[in-house]
Amino acid sequence: MSFQYIILNQDLSIKSDHSKSLSDAARPNCAVIGIWGLSEAANLSYLGLYAMQHRGQEAAGIVSSDGQTLYRHADSGLVADVFRDRCVFDNLPGNAALGHNRYSTTGSSSTPNVQPLLVEDRAGPIALAHNGNLVNYSDLRRFLVEEGSLFRTSTDSELFLHLFARSRAKSLINRLIEALHIVKGAYSLIILTRDSLIAVRDPLAFRPLSLGAKDDGWVVASETCAFDLLGAKYVRDVQPGEMVVFNDNRLESHQFAESKRTAHCIFEYIYFSRPDSRIFGVMVDKTRRRLGHILAERHPNPPDADFVIAVPDSSNTAGLGYAHQSGLPFEIALIRNHYIGRTFIEPEQRMRDFGAKVKFNPVAGVLRGRRVVLVDDSIVRGTTLRKLVRLIRGAGAEKVYVRISSPPIKNPCFYGMDFPTREELAADQHSIDEIRAYIEADDLEYLTPEELLEAVPHSSGQDYCTACFTGIYPVAVNNE
Amino acid sequence: MSFQYIILNQDLSIKSDHSKSLSDAARPNCAVIGIWGLSEAANLSYLGLYAMQHRGQEAAGIVSSDGQTLYRHADSGLVADVFRDRCVFDNLPGNAALGHNRYSTTGSSSTPNVQPLLVEDRAGPIALAHNGNLVNYSDLRRFLVEEGSLFRTSTDSELFLHLFARSRAKSLINRLIEALHIVKGAYSLIILTRDSLIAVRDPLAFRPLSLGAKDDGWVVASETCAFDLLGAKYVRDVQPGEMVVFNDNRLESHQFAESKRTAHCIFEYIYFSRPDSRIFGVMVDKTRRRLGHILAERHPNPPDADFVIAVPDSSNTAGLGYAHQSGLPFEIALIRNHYIGRTFIEPEQRMRDFGAKVKFNPVAGVLRGRRVVLVDDSIVRGTTLRKLVRLIRGAGAEKVYVRISSPPIKNPCFYGMDFPTREELAADQHSIDEIRAYIEADDLEYLTPEELLEAVPHSSGQDYCTACFTGIYPVAVNNE
Amino acid sequence: MSFQYIILNQDLSIKSDHSKSLSDAARPNCAVIGIWGLSEAANLSYLGLYAMQHRGQEAAGIVSSDGQTLYRHADSGLVADVFRDRCVFDNLPGNAALGHNRYSTTGSSSTPNVQPLLVEDRAGPIALAHNGNLVNYSDLRRFLVEEGSLFRTSTDSELFLHLFARSRAKSLINRLIEALHIVKGAYSLIILTRDSLIAVRDPLAFRPLSLGAKDDGWVVASETCAFDLLGAKYVRDVQPGEMVVFNDNRLESHQFAESKRTAHCIFEYIYFSRPDSRIFGVMVDKTRRRLGHILAERHPNPPDADFVIAVPDSSNTAGLGYAHQSGLPFEIALIRNHYIGRTFIEPEQRMRDFGAKVKFNPVAGVLRGRRVVLVDDSIVRGTTLRKLVRLIRGAGAEKVYVRISSPPIKNPCFYGMDFPTREELAADQHSIDEIRAYIEADDLEYLTPEELLEAVPHSSGQDYCTACFTGIYPVAVNNE
Amino acid sequence: MSFQYIILNQDLSIKSDHSKSLSDAARPNCAVIGIWGLSEAANLSYLGLYAMQHRGQEAAGIVSSDGQTLYRHADSGLVADVFRDRCVFDNLPGNAALGHNRYSTTGSSSTPNVQPLLVEDRAGPIALAHNGNLVNYSDLRRFLVEEGSLFRTSTDSELFLHLFARSRAKSLINRLIEALHIVKGAYSLIILTRDSLIAVRDPLAFRPLSLGAKDDGWVVASETCAFDLLGAKYVRDVQPGEMVVFNDNRLESHQFAESKRTAHCIFEYIYFSRPDSRIFGVMVDKTRRRLGHILAERHPNPPDADFVIAVPDSSNTAGLGYAHQSGLPFEIALIRNHYIGRTFIEPEQRMRDFGAKVKFNPVAGVLRGRRVVLVDDSIVRGTTLRKLVRLIRGAGAEKVYVRISSPPIKNPCFYGMDFPTREELAADQHSIDEIRAYIEADDLEYLTPEELLEAVPHSSGQDYCTACFTGIYPVAVNNE
Repeated sequence: MSFQYIILNQDLSIKSDHSKSLSDAARPNCAVIGIWGLSEAANLSYLGLYAMQHRGQEAAGIVSSDGQTLYRHADSGLVADVFRDRCVFDNLPGNAALGHNRYSTTGSSSTPNVQPLLVEDRAGPIALAHNGNLVNYSDLRRFLVEEGSLFRTSTDSELFLHLFARSRAKSLINRLIEALHIVKGAYSLIILTRDSLIAVRDPLAFRPLSLGAKDDGWVVASETCAFDLLGAKYVRDVQPGEMVVFNDNRLESHQFAESKRTAHCIFEYIYFSRPDSRIFGVMVDKTRRRLGHILAERHPNPPDADFVIAVPDSSNTAGLGYAHQSGLPFEIALIRNHYIGRTFIEPEQRMRDFGAKVKFNPVAGVLRGRRVVLVDDSIVRGTTLRKLVRLIRGAGAEKVYVRISSPPIKNPCFYGMDFPTREELAADQHSIDEIRAYIEADDLEYLTPEELLEAVPHSSGQDYCTACFTGIYPVAVNNE
Repeated sequence: MSFQYIILNQDLSIKSDHSKSLSDAARPNCAVIGIWGLSEAANLSYLGLYAMQHRGQEAAGIVSSDGQTLYRHADSGLVADVFRDRCVFDNLPGNAALGHNRYSTTGSSSTPNVQPLLVEDRAGPIALAHNGNLVNYSDLRRFLVEEGSLFRTSTDSELFLHLFARSRAKSLINRLIEALHIVKGAYSLIILTRDSLIAVRDPLAFRPLSLGAKDDGWVVASETCAFDLLGAKYVRDVQPGEMVVFNDNRLESHQFAESKRTAHCIFEYIYFSRPDSRIFGVMVDKTRRRLGHILAERHPNPPDADFVIAVPDSSNTAGLGYAHQSGLPFEIALIRNHYIGRTFIEPEQRMRDFGAKVKFNPVAGVLRGRRVVLVDDSIVRGTTLRKLVRLIRGAGAEKVYVRISSPPIKNPCFYGMDFPTREELAADQHSIDEIRAYIEADDLEYLTPEELLEAVPHSSGQDYCTACFTGIYPVAVNNE
Repeated sequence: MSFQYIILNQDLSIKSDHSKSLSDAARPNCAVIGIWGLSEAANLSYLGLYAMQHRGQEAAGIVSSDGQTLYRHADSGLVADVFRDRCVFDNLPGNAALGHNRYSTTGSSSTPNVQPLLVEDRAGPIALAHNGNLVNYSDLRRFLVEEGSLFRTSTDSELFLHLFARSRAKSLINRLIEALHIVKGAYSLIILTRDSLIAVRDPLAFRPLSLGAKDDGWVVASETCAFDLLGAKYVRDVQPGEMVVFNDNRLESHQFAESKRTAHCIFEYIYFSRPDSRIFGVMVDKTRRRLGHILAERHPNPPDADFVIAVPDSSNTAGLGYAHQSGLPFEIALIRNHYIGRTFIEPEQRMRDFGAKVKFNPVAGVLRGRRVVLVDDSIVRGTTLRKLVRLIRGAGAEKVYVRISSPPIKNPCFYGMDFPTREELAADQHSIDEIRAYIEADDLEYLTPEELLEAVPHSSGQDYCTACFTGIYPVAVNNE
Repeated sequence: MSFQYIILNQDLSIKSDHSKSLSDAARPNCAVIGIWGLSEAANLSYLGLYAMQHRGQEAAGIVSSDGQTLYRHADSGLVADVFRDRCVFDNLPGNAALGHNRYSTTGSSSTPNVQPLLVEDRAGPIALAHNGNLVNYSDLRRFLVEEGSLFRTSTDSELFLHLFARSRAKSLINRLIEALHIVKGAYSLIILTRDSLIAVRDPLAFRPLSLGAKDDGWVVASETCAFDLLGAKYVRDVQPGEMVVFNDNRLESHQFAESKRTAHCIFEYIYFSRPDSRIFGVMVDKTRRRLGHILAERHPNPPDADFVIAVPDSSNTAGLGYAHQSGLPFEIALIRNHYIGRTFIEPEQRMRDFGAKVKFNPVAGVLRGRRVVLVDDSIVRGTTLRKLVRLIRGAGAEKVYVRISSPPIKNPCFYGMDFPTREELAADQHSIDEIRAYIEADDLEYLTPEELLEAVPHSSGQDYCTACFTGIYPVAVNNE
């Protein structure tokens, strides 16, 4: 397949190329939320999406159900912008709802791609929200197109709907299970029909998905920080290969696939999830502190460092862990500008290192003449960190020792993390010392994969996907 | 099937009910235009749509092709509003294009329904614009949904795409022919792919579709008035059951279905087409004049009438025909307000007869103390004409003799004309005299179906659909 | 004064040049309406503006008063578009209101210019709507700017407010009278305060302004066609130099200036007003018919003409008058496309005569081989008529005899009609025969100024401004 | 004066009441920026506004000058949203520009109020941006309205323009100085004309305003953090009572008023300015650290506290200062959600303490069973802090000891800080212990005004406005 088409909306001119690489076809790291049996369900979904805004800033949408009809509002933009008008919620009635945040990347943010998807099935209207990435998307899409299915989006999430629609099984649940047996990859899925809410997690449980209780109703969400805002209580995670069906006031659990081990995305702990969420059984904050702790414990501390600083906000916790273990003071020397708005237009080409400056401003009074340990969570391309090191040095720092609370990223992700192609990864062809030289640090230490795994919980059968560090992919990927 | 769903856009809150009556499922009387082999093709489509704005004011859209990619811009509103920004055309490049005007009725004007439809087929992107109405839409849709097709619109036009996508035939043309053999009803269809433009007319040729030439390229349009604005020359009509394929610089004709007789919609002559268009072989203006002529010739003229007036602008030509034949002067006594904008909001409930006053204002100086013959093209519900007669009388007219240049409408249309249900038609249960009493006219004469047929051209095999007058439906309708 | 500034709105990029010629500074031919003592006053204003949409299509606005607060909604666009949302009227409460339609010309349609103007005066909020043009605008503006007044618009209408604000007189009425004694030119003015509605007409009564009654309330409007739609009854015209003040349930009349004669704009009869309006004491339709009548009576009729056609819709009535007097049949041979929308984008440069084709399509069946008399109301530049004659001839007409129901326009208007500069007027340097040659007519006849004056009413003291024909300006103009 | 009016825009329905209290009339804490002699000046203004977004999130605007014409773009929203479209900058040409961020508060965000204001003066177009608040606004406005000035906004910033326009002085500079001698209060002002940029600071220098150099041009900005992003170098502050005029390539300084002492707003150090800015002679970060330091040094430390946490991000630096001095570890236990978008809609009324939860989520793993010192910068009403203490306790903290890095706020601000009325201030009628009880803290300590003054720099003549703490107002306020 090598064609493409362009959809022009009034405000939107977007080119969606269905023939690109797999990791481009889907925008993986999103947030999903489902509400069942609670009044003002759309409102609660909105709050949950707001709490999980860090998982996707490109677009947001909610579908609600009043038992007869499904209602939808969705658009590109931040949650608070998409649902700016109070009256929107008047048009989203009912005690059940489904919400989705879409991850912000360049390109394919065309309106049709905004989730939740809402279609008419022969059993009635059905809405779906998906976090994850399917590895057999291209093959399945090609097959279905050949069979006469008409696709309306360029997301892999639509696959579920077509497979579901084509299943010859009798019940809605069985049709869904048939569809799930065909797709391969990572999916935390929530589905809303007129009379049920269904939460599904792939057999390897790549992405988080948790179950909470509030009053007499239920909440399902990508991260537990949504429960806190809603006043819901964490009950348990949706299990690997489990489908939880809420129906009237019953909760049914179906184990649609066997799961011997998990392949939790360890990057959720390193960077993606919020520190105040509990995922894969443990608080993210606690794990992230341990990463900083082990980094300070196992790797040489710069003997002359004055203090530790972190790249705000994502590396703050690991930075604190490092500071506590190393005995160095923790300082705040980078001021982050949080007012990003929908898009930021970069001016004059010749202004170098502009990207980093827009986000971060170093505090010269803290840095001048000092030797600092800079803790960051990861290095992808290295370009941003290089700019940051320059900014810090430009503000007068004498030494910049960089510590990374994860191992070198050497491989692309096919399960949902938005990494670039292998060639663009700093650690692909370069040694740690070459990277150090590139980012112009005085010193550079990473965690090893072993140390990383030491920091995370390991209950029975619980394992992690570390493919981006190790190249060991838990689900075979036949096209790159 | 009895469910429904609601799609909320930012500006739009629309309820689309797929289970309603057949005539509601599709908005029939639209305009289509196709351009092949002409630079600035989108621009030319725009002009053509503008010339055919009377066929549909609800929404407008254009898809263009540069041989590789299909580009689309569409929205609800008048053509001049949807394409207000000059830059829109920069984003619609190429020498081939397809345009569509959508008829304005209440209800289902949701954005997804706006044509041309653009989808990804296994042979590449394909766009479609449709004027007409399919009678086996509900059955086919139910069948396809059962088979696993996901519908994105509530229009019957989408059927073509699903049938086409599911065909197992080898070539694109054969797949299209397979699809056409399944649908039943009225369709003037234009399809655009990367390398061809295809014009299709149903075997009974319900709706007009003409072929024009301009420079080295081609134009296909619902009405020839579009050719005049484009500077294209009328060549011939697309034939009943014919598929014309433009491909490189060749024009291929396929007779995909036998056609023994036509069933031209006679209402196109009576009211719908523009008087300066040539359809079904004759200028509309000429036919409409003959209707007025026969009406004056065969029906008693009021002995004391002072002059003839017509309901502007649609009945002007028939009015002139009546005046010339009867020997009465032609007068202008109703001033029409043409500045309608997108929607007109009616105020205060208690203001009676408001609808007619907004459109028409009688000229008292002309009407006071006079006896007038009022020519109108048709009576559907009778409510508007009743208001008009009151307005005229209120302006001082002593007598209002009404003459209708078509027969009483007694039956709904299933092939595209937007009539109400049978029960709402004035002539359903009521005699002509009862209608006369209802509209408060001093006198009322209609054309008979026979007189009507006398006024229209009859070349070999050429016949008309007069179902709305006679109840004889040329294509069986199995659901009402 | 030679500077300029540019105001950029989100949608609007407009350059307003305050230094241009006087006739450019103001957009004269607008419509105004005032409602007093009627519930849903804003709604009624809206209807009135809709009826008078022909007087201005660029922008529309309404200010209402509930006795305490003044509320405003205004924007560029047609009335029906600006007031599309029903809820707008919920935000325009009260029993008094003021509305304005702005004439559509190129250029200065920036939002701040949209009327009614609403400002805070020391006596409370005050809103103003103006139809007309002041001849001492530039001088007064320069003077006021020197004195420290800050102008917010580039309209002459703002002058009234500044003069009013600066008056030292005690009462609001006296301040207003002081202001009126300073301005010179044409103005039909309506002013709304918290507790009164004030209607003013300049001493020469250039523009129409009529008083109507509805229930227990009052309506003031530029044209009486607004009364018809509202169901109001025409009472009388606001008199030259009169100020009518509505206050509680009283109506007070102040004669603020002596008026020995009027200078009614005769062009209102020829072209601008709607035929169903009564202005300057007589129905427009009646006068316009007389113009056609005299034109046929006093000027040679083409001996071989087959019939009469008119340029729709503005010349229809004069065309009928001509036909009746000459004994020739009246025909409809030009179909007008009324779906203009907000703007029409012209395509390809090389398409000649495009402007006329977009508006008019000739009916070949009527014109082929015929000799026609074409009646038009006036010739300004001659370019449009030239295109029209070509279109008619292109449709097969053998002869095109042109008849103009007014004299040659030789001079610009400084009182509100939107004519171009003298140099651009066809009749400035050219004889009638040269114009005939230019428009490619077989024959051309105009009315003479004397014949024109014969057609209009002449009660005592009633006279007309015919400056555009005769060069005799009733109010001295010191800058051109 | 007790009237009001309402301006309705299409999107906007706003009630601006000119008669309200003084502190309401103006939205004080804004950001201003001026660029002189640098290419892409509008772009640079945009960047500067972006860096100073924390000073105003309600609206943003830029006016540029190319030496002949002034161009403007402004709207409500965040900087990045208002200038979302790249093409906006194409319409803001020239080497000089002026920008303004408007503070976000409820109510009067009507479009006319958005700065920079742009008007036509007799010397040409002139634009103005203002940060501060005038205390004699109401009197002056009343006076000017009496004199015949027409106001277009409800901001005190417009006063400058009217006074300027009315001055009889000869030169533009002298007219401006005349105007400045009339107004009283706080103003950091930047003015742009066709050929000059003028920066002005009131004689008491309430608000910051700094001068920077970049290449051959100049930058003036409220805070130096804007210089860092632009790559400009800090030169000096605009002096109290100084007017700096940039003209061709010269910089002229005028001391328009004597200044014996300053009255720098000490709240800029406590909360408002960014930590990476240098204001009033010292880095904000350094001063804020000293506040925390002194707080820990002079006030009893809780003997059993486990660690220090701060309310992010504004109290982080003071919290670090406290931690370092007290010897307690610094912890991060509140996760802040920065994705606020334009507005946040609060749901269900009955959800208590919702406001704080939306912004902050406590990390239970850090807080459970611990005794924490919570550092916040100030207490205004106390409601937010009360919610925060509850959240922290709800997450399991055993003790919450609150430390405020400023004294109790007892008085409203008339110079620009957006405090509520006296009655709403927690410290108005209540003792510190009563406040402690209200916010449900185990312990509460404030800085004293003396300690506060100890932390800030005191060069010769440098003094501070501490009216909100002490009630001593440096400029008399005659209306409250």
